[in-house]
Parts: sequence; structure tokens; C-alpha cells
Amino acid sequence: MSLIQEKLAQAVGLLKEFRIDCWITFVRETSMLTDPTLPFLAPSDLTWHSALVVTASGERVAIVGKYDKQMLDEAKAYDEVIAYVEGFRKPLQELLRRIKPASIALNYSTDSEIADGLTHGMFLTMQEVLRELGMHERMVSAEPVISALRQRKTETELNAMRKAIAQTEEIFALVAEHIRPGMTEATIADFMKREVARRGLTFAWNEATCPAVFTGPDTANAHYHPTERRVEQGHILNMDFGVKVDSYCSDLQRTFYVLRPGETDAPVEVRKGFNTITRSIEAARALMRPGAKGVDVDGAARRVIVEAGYEEFPHGLGHQVGRFAHDGTALLGPAWEKYGKKPFQVLEEGMVFTIEPRLTVPGYGVVTIENMVVVRASGAEYLSTPQTELRLLRS
Amino acid sequence: MSLIQEKLAQAVGLLKEFRIDCWITFVRETSMLTDPTLPFLAPSDLTWHSALVVTASGERVAIVGKYDKQMLDEAKAYDEVIAYVEGFRKPLQELLRRIKPASIALNYSTDSEIADGLTHGMFLTMQEVLRELGMHERMVSAEPVISALRQRKTETELNAMRKAIAQTEEIFALVAEHIRPGMTEATIADFMKREVARRGLTFAWNEATCPAVFTGPDTANAHYHPTERRVEQGHILNMDFGVKVDSYCSDLQRTFYVLRPGETDAPVEVRKGFNTITRSIEAARALMRPGAKGVDVDGAARRVIVEAGYEEFPHGLGHQVGRFAHDGTALLGPAWEKYGKKPFQVLEEGMVFTIEPRLTVPGYGVVTIENMVVVRASGAEYLSTPQTELRLLRS
Repeated sequence: MSLIQEKLAQAVGLLKEFRIDCWITFVRETSMLTDPTLPFLAPSDLTWHSALVVTASGERVAIVGKYDKQMLDEAKAYDEVIAYVEGFRKPLQELLRRIKPASIALNYSTDSEIADGLTHGMFLTMQEVLRELGMHERMVSAEPVISALRQRKTETELNAMRKAIAQTEEIFALVAEHIRPGMTEATIADFMKREVARRGLTFAWNEATCPAVFTGPDTANAHYHPTERRVEQGHILNMDFGVKVDSYCSDLQRTFYVLRPGETDAPVEVRKGFNTITRSIEAARALMRPGAKGVDVDGAARRVIVEAGYEEFPHGLGHQVGRFAHDGTALLGPAWEKYGKKPFQVLEEGMVFTIEPRLTVPGYGVVTIENMVVVRASGAEYLSTPQTELRLLRS
Repeated sequence: MSLIQEKLAQAVGLLKEFRIDCWITFVRETSMLTDPTLPFLAPSDLTWHSALVVTASGERVAIVGKYDKQMLDEAKAYDEVIAYVEGFRKPLQELLRRIKPASIALNYSTDSEIADGLTHGMFLTMQEVLRELGMHERMVSAEPVISALRQRKTETELNAMRKAIAQTEEIFALVAEHIRPGMTEATIADFMKREVARRGLTFAWNEATCPAVFTGPDTANAHYHPTERRVEQGHILNMDFGVKVDSYCSDLQRTFYVLRPGETDAPVEVRKGFNTITRSIEAARALMRPGAKGVDVDGAARRVIVEAGYEEFPHGLGHQVGRFAHDGTALLGPAWEKYGKKPFQVLEEGMVFTIEPRLTVPGYGVVTIENMVVVRASGAEYLSTPQTELRLLRS
């Protein structure tokens, strides 16, 4: 079964679970602006106004421009692919008149960008189409369906992510052997990028900051590209890096310490920082199970950092990972305005999260570890190999 | 001046021209779903809710999450970059209270996908933010501003497109030498893809159909990937292909005829088809000047095809080209529902269009030429080298 066939079957079940009669993904010119849900529903871009319709009774119908029909036919995922030349309106209205849905879910959400693939112009068009049928008050957000579809990972999806993680960890191991004082952040990043190219992989996010490399006490912020700053003895160095395998991402961070002459271990402040991060991660992971809320998990990790005397990190503890490095709706985050309702959604089996607290050790640099876990009935299980020891780099 | 500085300056002028007080591009997690206007306003992806504000009085203010500030600062395109940790709402409301705009343009449009980058969820959020200020009835579509910003190409933009066209024409010339009967469409496409890679170029659209290659009388439709169908003597063969240089696209089609043993020219039906296409293109181009409407230009080309006894092509005559192969709002197209108001927009100086009529010669294949032109005060000027003769391929 292809991913599209698998996900369309899953969608029918989700419509029943959330008591929604009909779900319409409504897109156009997706090479320009694509609904993040589209890769689960179509094998490639769609050009003209296209309606991908799934019903709780199990019907799957695609209405697309003439030239997009053949590819959808070959995906063998829809009961019917209706092609039009002049406009989608008539075939869509005929379909809706026949299935008479009491609720019509559309891809919009204030709280979840992953479920917010419908543009406002397309919303206005759909509203008009439904108004002509007297159905415009039946529109609801498809967020629960879309979130569950992305979040409840199948084994196929988890396996792709395991492969991406393995590649990432291999490249971290290689670069750790390669780093020497005097190298710049940019040189280190280039070494990793060449490994990505050599292995035929793609980057998990924008290449400008993948990897991100930060060395020493005066580093730039997260989300900043590697600079000409040089690695020095006595620096904490951290990296944020991920790749894609079969369209699924890894997203991991590792922290290193560059020994000074005569040192055989990192200074006590650095070790304290590192141990605080690993304790913070374990405090969070211990709370992760189906039914837990991200805000509580975030709080547990944040408390460890603050109680150890550090400033709290100015971001959420962890996000989901999938086809994007930042994927899914539920979030391990604090109750900040910008996170909306995401931290209050409950964790479900099959969700994959990062755990990535951060703290600054004054005079040395930033300690941050990012591991990846999958939520199982019994708790959070590592997908990545957790970093449990500060990696020491010798000159 | 960088493209972003250039376009922000142009935007201030457009706000004055269209009598709009304030324009807000409102985005989040743009690596997942990006507003097509963003590359004119920011050097890279934005993670959290971000408001990029331009006013008719010339102010340019960006409100972004903390970690995105540094990159925007370095773009030196905004008077002020305001960074937040918890939420964008307070700084945005403070700004709007200060500038008191009578109209607030947002990126939505039913008619133009290029101006429809605001998702419905983000629209609802902005509506709420403005309601708290009593400004929610001041929202208008930014379509005129966005369309003009994309459509009125600067010389820098035209030069990038000229380079992309030159590369495309070189690759067409190479592949014409390479094609032999017995080769499959897929083999021919692979040859062209290797040239793209060798030259360090990227594809102008989805690689699966770039190039598209169609040989013989029973070809698939446009927008279909190259198949295992083999080139035979007596086939018409056509290709649709484009590349990107400096983020700007080419989009060209060429038609070839594979001579049969003893033939020194194509059969009369094939020549008639080809000549009809070139006449159709010239009929269209003769009408193109600032102030003309795309629907009339399309009609002129379509009339030539139909009057010569062929079925009319089931698509518009031509689209604009820019950062996307299908770019801009105004369209050379018929008054069909799916094209909305696009064919009725007037042509303006600096717009770049394809002209691409198509017809079928029964028993031989599809004839189609796609040239690119720029609209000047005096009329449409070729950017590409127009195909004026049917290219004959020998075995």
C-alpha cells in the first residue's frame, strides 16, 4: 500500500472518530503555495482548483483540472477522479448535493500551522460555492483529522525517521573527529554539508542553518547561520542538525567541550551545565505518555533548569517531527501566547517529539541536547541515541 | 541594492499608487507553508508569527520571533526589526495604534494565487487582533500591490530570466542532436536533467515533469511525466522545459519532427499544423501592449487555430513567468470560470508572458511552441529566440 492509500484509509477512520461527515482539501497551483497535508493525498503538485474529498462513509473523490487527472488515476487511491476543463464548481456541487454532508471540514486552524493549508482567498471561494448549496454554515476546521493523520505515525513512517536519525548520528561522529581549534563554524558546517551530499541525503530544514554550529561564549542565537567565529580551547560548541530520508526528518543537537592544555575533563561549571540538561531531559521524558499534556512536560524540564540557577530557555522544550522538522500540532511548550493551544493538547501513541532544553554557561557557551522520542502506551521511547556524556574534544 | 531593499522601496510607491495606508504580510513557519510574496520581503524562512509591515508614508517595520531578528537586521531593509519572545500581538497592536491606518491590506485574493499567501487561520488571528483595536473593518486585499510588485519586472529580474532562457535554449540545441528513433521519452528527459545538474542549475518546476517530453500521436496530456514510449519515424515530438537562474525561471516549448525514410521535409499536414501555431503566436503578439487585455490576446490566437480547422486548446494561451514558472495575476486566457478575473486585467510594462498555443495533428502528434516575451511601451518584445521553423530530426 502506498503512503497515500494508507493515509486515505486512516482518514476515513478519523472522520468517524471525530464525527465529521466530509473533509475537503481545497488547493490550486501547489507548486507556488502548498497545503502541508497534500503529500498524504496526492502524488504531486496540482495546478488548477482541486478538491480532494473524503467522507466518513468511506468515499474518496478527487476533482481536478484535466491535465492532473492521469497522475491521480495512477495513484489508485481515489474511487473516482473527476477532471474538468472550465471549472471545478459544477462537479463539486453535484458531488455535495449527492452526499449531503452535515459537516464539511476544511484545512484551517488558528492554532496549528500544519492544519492551516487553506488560504483565505480559497476559503472565500469555497464559502461561496457552499452558500449556493445552502451549506455554508456546515464548515468546520479539519484540525483534529489533520493533526491525528500526521501525528499518529505508522511503522513505515517511524522506519524512515530511524534511518534519518542513523545518518545524522554518523555525521555527528565524523565531525567530532574532524574539529580542531582554529576552525570556523562555517568550515565545520561545510564538512557536514559535504557528507550530506556524498550520501545523497537532503537537509531537514533550510540549508543556511542546517547544520547550525555555535562555538564559545559569544555565539549568535539559535536559527542563525554558521559564522567565521573560530573554535577555541575552553569553548562549549553545539550543533543543530538533521536530514531527510524518504521525506521524513531527523532533528538532533549535540554539545562538545574543547579541552584546554592540561585539562582532562571539562571545568566544573560546564559539567554542571551539561548534567542539568540531561536531568532536565529525563524529568520531561518521565512524564511523557498518552494523555499527558505538553505544558506539564515542558514545565518539568524548565523547573530543573531554573532550580539549578540558570535562566529558562526562551523557547518550547520540544516539537513533533515528521515530514517537516517542526511537524504536528501538540507541543511540549509553556503557556505562551505564540504557542496558542498546542501545549494543552494531549500526547497520543505514535507521536514523535524532540526534547531540547538549553542553558548558557557564562564564559563558555551554550549547552543544548536534542533527542528524539516516540510516545508509546508505556511511555516515551528513544528513537535517537541520547547524548548522556559531554563529548570532549582534544586539540 | 538587494532585491529585498529594491522591492520594499517599490512597495511604498505602490501603496501610494493604490491609495492603501498599510500593508501587512502575516506569516508563520514558512518552511512549511510560505507566502509567495515572502522572498521579496525577507532573506529566509520565518518561524513564529511574523508581521512585515509597510506604510504609504514609507515606514518599514518587521515584528518577528526573537531568533529570526538577526537575519532581518542584516538584510538592512527595515527601519525597525522588533523581536518578541512570548507573542507578536502586543508589539503589532502598539505599532498600529501609532500609525492609525485607514486601510490595512492583507495577502488574500480569490482570483490570484500569487496574492493569496495568507492562510485562513492566520486571517482569523489577524481579524481578532484588529477587532481589539476596532480596526477589523479596515482590511482590504493586497492583490493590486502584490501583483504589481511581481509583475513590473526590474532590469535585474529580466536579466536573470534572460540567463535562464539562454541555458534552456542551449540544452534544447544539445538534445536535438541527441535524439534518435527508438529512444524513450524518459531517456530523453534524463539526458536533459543531467545537463541541468552538470550546469549547476535548478528546475523551473517539479522535476517529475521538467522537462515534459511527448512523442507521437498517442501521447499523454500536458503535465504528465515522460514515459517509456519510444520515438518513431513520423512522430511529432514536443518538449516543455525550463530552469531557474538566480531564482528566476524560463519556460519554453519546442516542436520537432522525426523524418521517415525518403522524407526531406515534414508531411503537409504537419507543416500546416506548425505554420498555424506560428501564425497564432504572431496574431497574439501583435495585440500585446500596455492597456490590452489578456482575454483579447488569447482570443486572437485561439481564432487562428479554430479557423484553420483544429480543435481549440483546452488551456490559456500564456501565463506570466517570474520566480515561478506560473507567476503573476494577469493572464492571456479565455473567460473560463477557473481563470476568474485574470484574463480581464490589463497588461503593463515590464510583464513577462509565455505565448503557448497547441494543436493536434491526427496521426502525428501535438504541435506546440512556447516563447517568452516582455511587454514594453511599444509592444511585446521577445526574451527568448522564437521557434520559427519546425526542427527536423534525421535518423
